Amino acid sequence: MIKFDVLTIGNAIVDIIARCDDQFLSDNGITKGAMNLIDAERAELLYSRMGPAVEASGGSAGNTAAGIAGFGGKAAYFGKVAEDQLGAIFTHDIRAQGVHYQTKAKGTFPPTARSMIFVTEDGERSMNTYLGACVELGPEDVEDEIVAQSKVTYFEGYLWDPPKAKDAIRECARIAHKNGREVAMTLSDSFCVDRYREEFLDLMRSGTVDIVFANEQEALALYEIEDFEQALKAIANDCKIAAVTRSEHGAVILKGSERYKIDAIALQQLVDTTGAGDLFASGFLYGYTNGHSLEDSGKLGCLAAGIVIQQIGPRPMISLADAAKKAALI
Amino acid sequence: MIKFDVLTIGNAIVDIIARCDDQFLSDNGITKGAMNLIDAERAELLYSRMGPAVEASGGSAGNTAAGIAGFGGKAAYFGKVAEDQLGAIFTHDIRAQGVHYQTKAKGTFPPTARSMIFVTEDGERSMNTYLGACVELGPEDVEDEIVAQSKVTYFEGYLWDPPKAKDAIRECARIAHKNGREVAMTLSDSFCVDRYREEFLDLMRSGTVDIVFANEQEALALYEIEDFEQALKAIANDCKIAAVTRSEHGAVILKGSERYKIDAIALQQLVDTTGAGDLFASGFLYGYTNGHSLEDSGKLGCLAAGIVIQQIGPRPMISLADAAKKAALI
Repeated sequence: MIKFDVLTIGNAIVDIIARCDDQFLSDNGITKGAMNLIDAERAELLYSRMGPAVEASGGSAGNTAAGIAGFGGKAAYFGKVAEDQLGAIFTHDIRAQGVHYQTKAKGTFPPTARSMIFVTEDGERSMNTYLGACVELGPEDVEDEIVAQSKVTYFEGYLWDPPKAKDAIRECARIAHKNGREVAMTLSDSFCVDRYREEFLDLMRSGTVDIVFANEQEALALYEIEDFEQALKAIANDCKIAAVTRSEHGAVILKGSERYKIDAIALQQLVDTTGAGDLFASGFLYGYTNGHSLEDSGKLGCLAAGIVIQQIGPRPMISLADAAKKAALI
Repeated sequence: MIKFDVLTIGNAIVDIIARCDDQFLSDNGITKGAMNLIDAERAELLYSRMGPAVEASGGSAGNTAAGIAGFGGKAAYFGKVAEDQLGAIFTHDIRAQGVHYQTKAKGTFPPTARSMIFVTEDGERSMNTYLGACVELGPEDVEDEIVAQSKVTYFEGYLWDPPKAKDAIRECARIAHKNGREVAMTLSDSFCVDRYREEFLDLMRSGTVDIVFANEQEALALYEIEDFEQALKAIANDCKIAAVTRSEHGAVILKGSERYKIDAIALQQLVDTTGAGDLFASGFLYGYTNGHSLEDSGKLGCLAAGIVIQQIGPRPMISLADAAKKAALI
């Protein structure tokens, strides 16, 4: 029985978002545009230097699940928070969006993960993530029947950072494939690709993963090359379906020898790129699991990404379903 | 010695903000446009029904202090949070804005106050406030030297809701006046005025309060009349300076027989009225304590209010100082 379009799995994170200038990033050794992993001590230091902020539930795969539900799709999520106020906020927001979320929160230490996100004038976000309770996610958190009942199980490459999550992922992939479902992943971040290149390639080449999401930098990092066309050919060869995003240049969807080039949507203003890739994945997977063509699924992805980067925070405050209807995509 | 332009005192609150429709308000018995006081049980119930939200530090007087600092003024704040994650967020944000804030956080129960703010399509906000740790604010939290060193000490009428804060306020007023400073208050909310009408009038008529902020509804509620002109005359008679705001009709500043009518600024779009009155007070008090005329102080108030209602959340994300310079007001 199918109960969910997509199950997503990731680090459950609350975002703490503030604006800063480029000087602040270089003064504080923050790699611009990247996800910088930090420990508790550095989290405290950076927070003491951060300007007034706002908070919003985030986490890459959490944003994707929220986006799928925002399109009207059925989504589930696995991710670990602590039993604290930020954990309650994360739990509230994803459930209030209509996503199935029942991963057991665990204790009060380490606390719920947070990512301090600095948004510069150009709209680029630079993330500083303290993983906190995310390190506790493991195979015991796999709800077998949810995996079995989801058309696609999608996870973040970021899950290779905490120690036990990859074991959960391998178990999920096994259950999904045993039930005739598909498995998808995002490469997450070019530095994350650098950390786990061989494992990611193995996931793809072994057939553990069917569908891969990457942006241009991640695809180039995966193959350690500088030629984008070469990277597209390699990634198409290494998985069944690849969706490669290119910021203002839209996206390319690849399936064997099929290739669809999707344009980015026109923007009123670029505010904050946080969540762009996550929302692209939400649109694509909503379309893909609801009978839309690869090309239209790509268009739904570009629509959702274009919407989320015109606001602060990683989850759209407007209805994606309404936007998709208005764009005549659903 | 003067160290601060304005000390503000209020309920230290983190806002939890979501959109809803009018039906939701009536279904849940929420008085539209008002501050609805709720207990822990109702807070839990409403949160379970609330859509995905974002969080931002708030609290009326906290927003005013942040606004004064945003204009480049020197601000201090008294308000009580608990030793929890929301308390840490509140503390971070007000300090990061440059506001002196040293009120001791107290324990983990009751937790830091939160207000669930529902924003309807028309931009109107309806607040549901669980006071939590705010009930602990009392005379022992008064930092005498900060009061003595502030040109104006400003407090919320909302402080009459928790049990001991009014004692702190009376002590602050005594210290302020002994040091030749002035005392200001906002009437906060027309229902709050209904709860404490006689005490508020006594604060004004006894000279405990020199400057009063009110919106039209609050001024009418204070005198239980329907004639705005009559309310203006009464309030001008009951305090040294009155600043009465009128939403899209701007504001009226009164001092004895002097009267200044200030226009509201033109809006691109009305997003969320949360913080409008708080930010008006910040602009007015920044101007008033920095040698600007009553009229120009009123214009600074209308500028700040106009800015905050064009974004989500109660504290402007753009620089008020830059906006005031651009408007040639400072």
